Amino acid sequence: MINASTTLYAVIGDPIVHSLSPIMQNWFINQFNLNAVYGAFHVKNESLRSCVDGVRAMGIGGLNVTVPHKEAVISFVDALTDEVKLLGAANTLDNVGGRITAHVTDPYGFMESIRDKDRFRGASVLMYGAGGAAKSVAYALSKLGVEQLLIFDLVTEKASELAALSQNKFAIKSASALQKSFAPMKEILAHTHIVINATAVGMHPFENKTVVDHYDVITSEHFFYDLVYNPGVTTFLRMAAEKGAAVQNGLDMLIFQGLQSMRIWTGQELPLSETQLNELKNMMKKQLGIHE
Amino acid sequence: MINASTTLYAVIGDPIVHSLSPIMQNWFINQFNLNAVYGAFHVKNESLRSCVDGVRAMGIGGLNVTVPHKEAVISFVDALTDEVKLLGAANTLDNVGGRITAHVTDPYGFMESIRDKDRFRGASVLMYGAGGAAKSVAYALSKLGVEQLLIFDLVTEKASELAALSQNKFAIKSASALQKSFAPMKEILAHTHIVINATAVGMHPFENKTVVDHYDVITSEHFFYDLVYNPGVTTFLRMAAEKGAAVQNGLDMLIFQGLQSMRIWTGQELPLSETQLNELKNMMKKQLGIHE
Repeated sequence: MINASTTLYAVIGDPIVHSLSPIMQNWFINQFNLNAVYGAFHVKNESLRSCVDGVRAMGIGGLNVTVPHKEAVISFVDALTDEVKLLGAANTLDNVGGRITAHVTDPYGFMESIRDKDRFRGASVLMYGAGGAAKSVAYALSKLGVEQLLIFDLVTEKASELAALSQNKFAIKSASALQKSFAPMKEILAHTHIVINATAVGMHPFENKTVVDHYDVITSEHFFYDLVYNPGVTTFLRMAAEKGAAVQNGLDMLIFQGLQSMRIWTGQELPLSETQLNELKNMMKKQLGIHE
Repeated sequence: MINASTTLYAVIGDPIVHSLSPIMQNWFINQFNLNAVYGAFHVKNESLRSCVDGVRAMGIGGLNVTVPHKEAVISFVDALTDEVKLLGAANTLDNVGGRITAHVTDPYGFMESIRDKDRFRGASVLMYGAGGAAKSVAYALSKLGVEQLLIFDLVTEKASELAALSQNKFAIKSASALQKSFAPMKEILAHTHIVINATAVGMHPFENKTVVDHYDVITSEHFFYDLVYNPGVTTFLRMAAEKGAAVQNGLDMLIFQGLQSMRIWTGQELPLSETQLNELKNMMKKQLGIHE
């Protein structure tokens, strides 16, 4: 029961009405028996400073920060983790007695979502997209021991920037941007067995789109990972699965980045069993109206 | 279930940890099926402006305001109701699209708590206390048609001020402050059948105190009303009840001032049945650990 000692957490963004975070985080709160409650605030860009000041003034325990505030919010906090400095973005603010530290849990969400971490050690990865999510994934890939990263983005400069960052700061041995017209995508797909979609292509309501052109070279050796989770099986994943590839959508990453925030806020380990994870996923799928 | 459309309300104060408002308001939210959740924030005086700015920035639906912020908060809002102007205090902020109006629902809480309103029409009332709560009660008494109000406070100037306000602004025909040493309290008690304690005297943990000295003149004609609700039966009430007087504690007032805030925030009527009221009171008594 909520009482005067209950800690409030919330997600902020613009828009915010479609966020799954309140449903997910309140499920954690319930499962882990925390005296807390988690809401959602629609915060405009020009109100971001007042929002963070308000967090201090009201003793709100922490915030999740989503689009478009992940970069801008950094200016208004008291401290940044090394990872936030590296990535230039934060998705979690932790308020300890009025001192607010910005964290980023997206890379942890990606890492914890990977069951077969051996697959990544020393591997080559092809990633579509070079935006904020892709940056977090690239960082996570470096932590998982990926040695080669190929990045494709419609905006080649963004891909080049992320490739440079990945190689120079994230300790990925070799990272390069692919040129749209010149890259031998078919060859690359044939020989790169981990393929990640970190773009929004294929997301509801544009389900029939996929970033990949050459499914003919996909085999059971491949692992396709889509950050999109609605629909649960994107065209990107479905067509790869039809070729025998292992596939995974973005729901686990969403869940584990959120859980990691809750761990930061509470200082507790909050271990999630397989049964709990499946229960939560089913609940979230129902909320999304996902029919796989 | 809390989702991204759920509206947040909260109570602010310093201290706040003992507030019953979250338990009560979340009970209303549940009973009336509102998509809302109600928390509590410990807000220091120097953070009051940031708090109100934060309410705007985050789109928090509204606040209840308690000690010590009821007067100071007025400076930071966009509009005041006439009653807030009259009483110089607010306990409810309503945020409509970033425009915050300060309301005061304490007088409504008192009025709605009175079952036998006829008793007050044209009556004389003796009130102990001349602080913020007493001011709200004096205003409510004027609305109930009380014609004479006698006010006793240890600080006679406060009693005089409230008497002047009651007579000049609240339309009570005759209001006067009683002097501690000179007032014939026994005579007054014998002839004034409505006696209100608007001080904190008798509140837990000082249960054996009462503001009244002369219970020998109390009869079944009397009605004793104590704004204190913990303990449920104060010495003030118990000794009057022993003389056959009707008695009432402050729990109903607490409940109805809170309900009135929720009505303002939602624009809904939110009628509370007798059964619901009793259920809520039992729940709150359990929370308080009240043994009557």
